[in-house]
Parts: sequence; structure tokens; C-alpha cells
Amino acid sequence: MDDDTPPFFYVMNYASEAEGDVIDMVSGNPDWEPPEALREGLHEYADADTDAFQYPPSVGLRELREEIATRRGVDISQVVITNGAGEANHLAMAEGLDAMDGNEIILADPVYPYYDGRTNLLDAEKTLVPVDDDGHLDPAAVREHASAETAVIVVNSPNNPTGVTYGGDTVEELVDVAEEYDALLVSDEVYDHFDYSGRFTSALSIDSPNRVVTNSFSKSMAITGWRVGYAIFPREDRPDPYGGLVDSARTRHMLTNVAISRPAQTAVLQALRETGPEYYEQVRERMVERIDRFTAALEAAGADYTEPEGSFYVMARFPGTPGTMENIEMLIDEAGVAGMPGEAFGESRSDWMRFALVSPRVEEAAERLDEFF
Amino acid sequence: MDDDTPPFFYVMNYASEAEGDVIDMVSGNPDWEPPEALREGLHEYADADTDAFQYPPSVGLRELREEIATRRGVDISQVVITNGAGEANHLAMAEGLDAMDGNEIILADPVYPYYDGRTNLLDAEKTLVPVDDDGHLDPAAVREHASAETAVIVVNSPNNPTGVTYGGDTVEELVDVAEEYDALLVSDEVYDHFDYSGRFTSALSIDSPNRVVTNSFSKSMAITGWRVGYAIFPREDRPDPYGGLVDSARTRHMLTNVAISRPAQTAVLQALRETGPEYYEQVRERMVERIDRFTAALEAAGADYTEPEGSFYVMARFPGTPGTMENIEMLIDEAGVAGMPGEAFGESRSDWMRFALVSPRVEEAAERLDEFF
Repeated sequence: MDDDTPPFFYVMNYASEAEGDVIDMVSGNPDWEPPEALREGLHEYADADTDAFQYPPSVGLRELREEIATRRGVDISQVVITNGAGEANHLAMAEGLDAMDGNEIILADPVYPYYDGRTNLLDAEKTLVPVDDDGHLDPAAVREHASAETAVIVVNSPNNPTGVTYGGDTVEELVDVAEEYDALLVSDEVYDHFDYSGRFTSALSIDSPNRVVTNSFSKSMAITGWRVGYAIFPREDRPDPYGGLVDSARTRHMLTNVAISRPAQTAVLQALRETGPEYYEQVRERMVERIDRFTAALEAAGADYTEPEGSFYVMARFPGTPGTMENIEMLIDEAGVAGMPGEAFGESRSDWMRFALVSPRVEEAAERLDEFF
Repeated sequence: MDDDTPPFFYVMNYASEAEGDVIDMVSGNPDWEPPEALREGLHEYADADTDAFQYPPSVGLRELREEIATRRGVDISQVVITNGAGEANHLAMAEGLDAMDGNEIILADPVYPYYDGRTNLLDAEKTLVPVDDDGHLDPAAVREHASAETAVIVVNSPNNPTGVTYGGDTVEELVDVAEEYDALLVSDEVYDHFDYSGRFTSALSIDSPNRVVTNSFSKSMAITGWRVGYAIFPREDRPDPYGGLVDSARTRHMLTNVAISRPAQTAVLQALRETGPEYYEQVRERMVERIDRFTAALEAAGADYTEPEGSFYVMARFPGTPGTMENIEMLIDEAGVAGMPGEAFGESRSDWMRFALVSPRVEEAAERLDEFF
């Protein structure tokens, strides 16, 4: 396993090669149905004229960018369609590092492993800011670590892996830190449809040129393998270096990916237009029910655990069994439950394990863990 | 128009906003039908279980990699599925630059603008080697320009824009130059199904760790907008730095794109399995017929022109009208034909214009040009 390789694939492979029945709670892969209009959209596209099979605009299909711009209240010129939030985050981090003074990227600890890997790939200095005991990121702690060297601050709310959702005050203060140090706040909001606290605030709601918001349809439409995401950059009429970010992002995107897969873009557009709030509400309710069942079983097992305010993840801590890769392998083999090791997300939660509630068998999983411990 | 932005999108926009009827010969966008199994594959995927909608392996669907490895006679571990040949070329150039000594990338002139833009994006020194009068790249000229500073040499055969196909001797000698200077030869072979000379030789046929071959299904299956390509790296058991290239390419690919759009990968796999040689033969024959009609009309018009040995492109030169962007705009407005300016491909063919034969109206286009001049 390479140091820069997110360990998800390693654990998934290990679990799939295990002998017994294993309940898969490794990766944030939804196990529920996508919007109906998505399947319909793909069928229609499969019958389209051949010119619909050729290069879309490099920045993305115009109608999809328009739909996103309208929903997010931004100008269409700010929107770049990307190969999932993965490319969006890479693009925003790379451009922020290029355009801002300094070579430091600030991340929260626990950290989503891809942010960490990207920081290495981009040859940036990395500063990890540990979250509070309750999993929240204290903007004052970020401010303490920030300096003239800080180019980019990456945050994620609702958060993977801690399950917290940052409130408006936190987001505002994070933007304020970015402004104070001439840095770029990259706010990854892929779980925005999975906020159970009512507290979620997009960084877009704060008027500032110092923030890029990234998102995707991977989680909200249950299609992590389709790879349609987007980044919203500062308006072009903002002073440089902020106003110039979107144009250089377009260039980098064009030269690395040329354009984004059109079958997926087309079907997502149709699903975005035709899917009402009931779909998202239903999916959210199912997740809340799973959280209740899983945490109740963990409670009965006497484990420590987090109560998610958002996202798909519960972190749990079992006495005498820290969240190492070795222990994760043991639980796969001996308890038949696959989670992620806390150590994969940095130091501050290395005692914990992360379980993704993307299986109808969450209660059974918790019972297996109970029996095992 | 940004210096690093390939000018295709500019010309396509200009043509689409023109008042009269314009025959579009700008970009290499096939206007013919994809294999039937491709549409079928996409329909089947649209009805698949939800787990088929989640993250595929980062390096690509295993069955697709296997199918490619078998066809190309390489080990599956050498194959990385990419977001079209665009990402494959970016990946190979970036990894070559990282792993090899030196900071220079050698390109042929005329040059496909994306290679040029990527060289700038990667902060490499660029050396352009002019092709011969007949459009062929003389390996001796590449050898003359190569030095210890050379990290990467990018070639493309069958070639865009010159339409030449390199023979086995040329390819062998280019690999030899790469070996002599410890450089990486990146051989972009996206037009391999469009060789009319019988001379096409893949760089894979030469046993060497100094070459990466890139390709895609964009042209062979008439789906430039689907974004499924691949790179074939040296075997991992080769000595470093060559043996290590594929692993660091996998990491870079994972951290920039996570994975490639699964609907497109799945349908391409089905089409690859179920499409016989007749499909490719038919498409090739249609192209040869278009070349004949277009060049005959250019001959009648008294223009200079190239006779393609491969790819989709004819370059033409009209007296007193060099291949500038200004003249391309004039031809769009006044002759109703949209091509690409030769100056977009470097200096050595700046007198010329490039016409992509991706329209059934190629003869009419040549007649319009004839009338105009």
C-alpha cells in the first residue's frame, strides 16, 4: 500500500477476498436507488444522434452549468463541471496553491485521505489542525495555525469521517481566516443533502472571493461511479489573484481531462431537472433510521460512538482495539464487519474506526460487533 | 483566447455563431455511427443494479483492462484506464518529467496544441522539431535536438495534423533515441484504426522500457465525448525509473480523477467485445472515399494539399492566404467552410490550414473553397 494511496481500495480488496460473509461498511458507496429520471436520461442518451456523442464543452454541458448556477445563485461563468468532486478538489487546491502566496495547505485532522494525498502530490507543506473532542473544527485553531505561508485551507461539511456539520458561524469565521491570510478556502460540500442538524451552511452564502465550493452528484444521486461534480470559483470580476482563478482552472481542466464524460453529464442533467425534494427527503430519512439502529446497537455493546449531524459515517471506539489496519482486518475475518481504520484519517482519531452506513444490514453489523467484543 | 487554451473551442464557437451555413471541418469529431453494441451496452447499464453505479476500480474496470491487455499483448498491470487519451497523455508526460532526469519535452512541429499546452502546464522546457517537407518526423532530427536534458519525447502516429503514418523503422529509431538519452517516448496512437498506408507500427511492438503508448476509443468508436482512453506503461519488473512509472501514474490518476465514468467504461467494454473488424473496415473505407473526393476538388482548385496516410486530416494551402486565425474567420464568413488555422499547430505549417473530414459534405466544402479562391 503506497503512502499516497487512499487505503479504501486496500480494505475493499481485503474484505472481498475474505472467506466468510462480510458486511461492507468501508466506502461511502450508496446502496440505494438513484433518481428514476437518471436511468431514463441514460436510456434517452443511448438513443441520441451521433453528434450528442462528441466532445461536450470542456467546462461542461451548458444546460448543466446553467442548472447548477441557478440553483446555487452564482454566475454560470463561475461553474466548472469536473470528474466528480475528486477533480474539483484537486483543481481548487492546485489553483489556490499556484495563485496564492505561500506553499502551505491546512487540513483538519481527522482528514479525508484524498486531501492528504493531493497535498503530497502538489508538493505543498501540510498542516493538520486537530478537531475538538466533539469532532468540530474550531476556526480559532485554524487561525492559530494560519500564517503568510498558508495558500489553501480545505474543509468538508457535513464531514467525512467525523459526521459533524459546521454551522454558519464556523463557516463565516473560516472564510474570515482565509481573507486575513490571503488564502483560498476550499469547501467540499458533497454531503450537503445529508444534513440532519438543520445547521448546514454553504460557504457560498458568505460573500467573499476567498472561497471555492466543490460538490458532486455522487452521493445525492447515489452514483459515485459516474463521476460528475463541479467547482464554483470566485467571480471573474473580482480582483486578482481571485478573479483569475476560474480561467486558470478551466485551462488546467482542459489540459488534464479535455472534457467530462457526456453520457453521465446528460443523465445527471435530466435527473437534476426532474427529481423533486421527496427523493432526497426519503434517502435522508432512511439514513437517519440506519444511524438510530446502528448507534443503539453500539450503545448496547458499550462502545463509544459519534452521533452524526450529517454525512454517512459513524465513528466507534472499542476498548483495547485501536483503529489500526491490523484490527480492521481482524474484524473482517473474525466479526464479518468491514469498516475503515481511524489511523487512515490521521492521528487525532486513530483509536476509532469509521463505519459507512451504506448497507441495509447496519443493525446486524452492530450486533456482530457486540458479540465479538 | 488564452495562450494555453487549444484554439479548437474558439473556432467552433466562431463557426456556430456565423450567419450563413457553415460546413464544420474544425475538430476531429466523427459524424458516423458508433458500434451498435455500444448503444446496447449503455441501455443495459442504465438498467443495472445500483452497485454497478458505484466507484469502479481507480485504474479502470478489470474486464476492460483485461480486454485491452489481451489485445495489445501486455500485462494487465501495465494498463491504466483514463479520461480519454487526453488524460493518458497528461499522465505519461507528467510521470516522465517527474521520473526522468532533465526538464525538457520534445515535440514535433506542427504540434497538436494540447501537447504544447501540457508542456506549459507542467513547467517543462519545450523543444519543437520541425517535420520534413512531406510531413514526416525524421528520427535523426529528433536525435540532434535530444540531450541529457530531455525527459520526454511525444509523438503521434497516424498524425494529427499532418496525416502521415510513421513506419516501423521510424518508431524503432525514436525508441532508440529515448533509450540513448534516458528519456520516455510517449506514443499517442489514437488514430491506429485509421491507417491507409499499411505502414502503421505501434511503439508497443518494440521491446523497450522507454516507451508509453496512449490510445482511446474516441475515434475508433466515434465517441469523443465519452472519455474512455488508456495508457500502457512499462512493466513493473523493469528497473527504475521505468518500472516505477505505472505505480506513480496510478497514484496521480487516483488523486486527480479518483476513477473514470463507469457508464462509458461499461458500454465501451461491451462494444469492444462484440464489434467485429467489419465495423472498423467500413469506417475506414468511408474516410478514404472522403479523402479522395476532397483532395480531388482541392486539386481542381489549384491548391497545395497533403495526401493523408492516416488520421482524419487534410492540410491545404491557398495562395496569398496563410493559415492565420483571421483567414480562418474569413473563410467561415465568406466561403462557409470552417477549418483550423495552421498557425495553431506551430510555425512549420503556419501557411497551411487543416480540414477534418468529419462531414458528409467534404466535396461541397472543397467546391466552396474552389469558388472562393
